[in-house]
Amino acid sequence: MVGGAVRTRRLPRAERERQMMDAAVRVFGRQGYRGASMDEVAELAGVSKPLVYLYLKSKEDLFTACIRREARALTEAVRGGVGDAALPADRQLWEGLHAFFRYTAENPDGWAVLHVQARTHGEPFAAEVAAMRAELVVFVTQLIAVEARAAHRDPDLPEREVAGLAQALVGAAESLAAWANTTEGISARQAAATLMNFAWAGLGNLIAGRPWTPPPT
Amino acid sequence: MVGGAVRTRRLPRAERERQMMDAAVRVFGRQGYRGASMDEVAELAGVSKPLVYLYLKSKEDLFTACIRREARALTEAVRGGVGDAALPADRQLWEGLHAFFRYTAENPDGWAVLHVQARTHGEPFAAEVAAMRAELVVFVTQLIAVEARAAHRDPDLPEREVAGLAQALVGAAESLAAWANTTEGISARQAAATLMNFAWAGLGNLIAGRPWTPPPT
Repeated sequence: MVGGAVRTRRLPRAERERQMMDAAVRVFGRQGYRGASMDEVAELAGVSKPLVYLYLKSKEDLFTACIRREARALTEAVRGGVGDAALPADRQLWEGLHAFFRYTAENPDGWAVLHVQARTHGEPFAAEVAAMRAELVVFVTQLIAVEARAAHRDPDLPEREVAGLAQALVGAAESLAAWANTTEGISARQAAATLMNFAWAGLGNLIAGRPWTPPPT
Repeated sequence: MVGGAVRTRRLPRAERERQMMDAAVRVFGRQGYRGASMDEVAELAGVSKPLVYLYLKSKEDLFTACIRREARALTEAVRGGVGDAALPADRQLWEGLHAFFRYTAENPDGWAVLHVQARTHGEPFAAEVAAMRAELVVFVTQLIAVEARAAHRDPDLPEREVAGLAQALVGAAESLAAWANTTEGISARQAAATLMNFAWAGLGNLIAGRPWTPPPT
């Protein structure tokens, strides 16, 4: 028993840091940046406050580290979710969206840090999230562009046409995740299905070369 | 000439305030909340700094007043744009989106205040924008619900199914407006057409009772 307790105290540094970060994400996600206290983070992680400062320096550094960790995890979840490039386009999109909504549903505090808290507390934090978002937009743009260029047999389909669609998709997904996480009884699968229903047939028609035509000016 | 100059100085209070607010929206939109100075607002409005403080009290009050004015103007532009309820659903949606993107393109500083600055500087400002956004979501939800219920001959089509679609549409529109305003050569009409292409055929199929079906779990 004593040996076990000693092993618990002698966690490797990486593991100890992970516990502190888990606690920090939870506190920042729920209390916001200003409302969060280092005391609360230390208590939740089961360590002393000086240890939190020793490992993670300042509240600002800790918040930045949380944003970076959550951004990386979300991006990896989406990339991993999309899976096999040989799948049909709608299936790849479905898998990617489902992975996104699963991640945000299972990590509501992490999502709150990225979508609400990081944007609400000044430019340096907002810039961290903007970088992650830009990476996701590029990833989605590539997914759509590959399909659209293959369907049109046009390897030069303008990047900017596709980039607009990717912006719409990412914005819709962000909005739906925030809504699903604050609305009782909306599952990740339902949120992903809603977005596919909203977007796919439109995107699907576009990829097949059947655009919606605006009325004349 | 002297008479003209005197009349210029004796602008009615409402008109004088409008000039200061125009200047403030421009300064806040471009410099951000922290970067903006009351000196710059006063200079751009062509008035003395004490006069700005006399009319608009503090930088915080001035920023709040800017957010409220821009939120009201944007909401009115969209409501006004949708127009005749007798038009087909896709036409109403097109007109509303076109009005939204026209407004954000013609008022890039106002849009930056709402979409970026108000969200980046603490909860009270972010709450002002959240209230406007909630109003837009309700408006869009009603638009979609009327069409979907009519098409399904089901007056009780669940509000929450429609609310998810409205969240997706509003999120996509916000994202596209931010992209269009920071990307050379994207017109309001192009941004609105991109969103219709992305969303309409999907939404159109849904309204007609042809949902996209997810693969089995």
